[in-house]
Amino acid sequence: MKIGILGSGVVGQTLGTKLASLGHSVKMGSRTPANAEASAWAKKTGEGASHGTFADAAHHGEMLFNCTLGEASLEALRSAKASDLVGKILVDVSNALDFSKGMPPALLLPSTDSLAEQIQRAFPEARVVKALNTVAAPLMVDPGRLQKGAHSIFICGNDPTAKKAVQELLEVGFGWKDVVDLGDVSMARGTEAYLLLWTRLYMKFQNPEFNIRIVR
Amino acid sequence: MKIGILGSGVVGQTLGTKLASLGHSVKMGSRTPANAEASAWAKKTGEGASHGTFADAAHHGEMLFNCTLGEASLEALRSAKASDLVGKILVDVSNALDFSKGMPPALLLPSTDSLAEQIQRAFPEARVVKALNTVAAPLMVDPGRLQKGAHSIFICGNDPTAKKAVQELLEVGFGWKDVVDLGDVSMARGTEAYLLLWTRLYMKFQNPEFNIRIVR
Repeated sequence: MKIGILGSGVVGQTLGTKLASLGHSVKMGSRTPANAEASAWAKKTGEGASHGTFADAAHHGEMLFNCTLGEASLEALRSAKASDLVGKILVDVSNALDFSKGMPPALLLPSTDSLAEQIQRAFPEARVVKALNTVAAPLMVDPGRLQKGAHSIFICGNDPTAKKAVQELLEVGFGWKDVVDLGDVSMARGTEAYLLLWTRLYMKFQNPEFNIRIVR
Repeated sequence: MKIGILGSGVVGQTLGTKLASLGHSVKMGSRTPANAEASAWAKKTGEGASHGTFADAAHHGEMLFNCTLGEASLEALRSAKASDLVGKILVDVSNALDFSKGMPPALLLPSTDSLAEQIQRAFPEARVVKALNTVAAPLMVDPGRLQKGAHSIFICGNDPTAKKAVQELLEVGFGWKDVVDLGDVSMARGTEAYLLLWTRLYMKFQNPEFNIRIVR
């Protein structure tokens, strides 16, 4: 599959490397075509990895991942050609956090909205699936790193077929054993707000390698 | 120990019954002294159970539990005699949720504040400990109801001695095995915001008997 990744930070690189290793053709997009991080990533990853602008990545991918900073996501997506988002699965991995007062952050949005909904409203023909935003990058693609049992990951979105495709990638591609489908894209208000707890747990543990397991 | 419970709903009743069964003298407080729920609870519970106004409960207790609705908590606490809160451990179990648009709710407060902080600011000489607000009432006092392994509960507050006392009650009295001390009272922003995820999980499962376990 051809995959476009918007964002060249740790999340984009980690997802890109894993997806390339699974045999996908991955193009990493940045604001500028000659972004040093993206260029270094493509060179290091080799086979199946390339880089370009956000618009290049959106054009390339049959499935897209938004791994930009939450506050920059809409602008990054707007720099793509509108027709390159139509009908495509757009996995939104980002969080809109306000670090202006330091750690721990607040939310940039009120609890009556979410970044995933903003993206879905701005691009109504994209098939937005919120996923993976509740864990650190290394766990996204390798949940087995935590050896004390299975833990849970959430997806939500308006398009059942898109969610099914993302769930399969998470399970078969990345190894997730407990994918919880919360419902429509507005359920992202729950998983994005969870970052207020996640960041506090991160401060306590001084380590991002943790997650939650739903116990019933 | 003498315990005052503010609030006569399911949470107040569940905590009150358990605390009375542990041998504590529990007074349940309501807006009016003749509240029907509180009266029925005291009669049913018998030994160690009594009821009265919010002020009566605050006067009675060496340790207090705020189990009122989040939007009514400050008013309930203000109806107590100010000196009856001074120096006392005040366990804040409530959540400030906005159900005005139906389920799932939004938060009444912005992510830069929390109900526990509001209470601590309003009553600076009370020793506020946020606890138990992340699980349904039956689980608060009987975490073993979930049989698929241990799960986690959070505490936070500014007074280490008060937190230690609450942690001991949770562990020894109620049977919690993983009590996570997040830090000062502002950490309640994390556990209160988690309700945005909790309420969505509740809608999905159609059952409040679940919790999260921290996996590291």
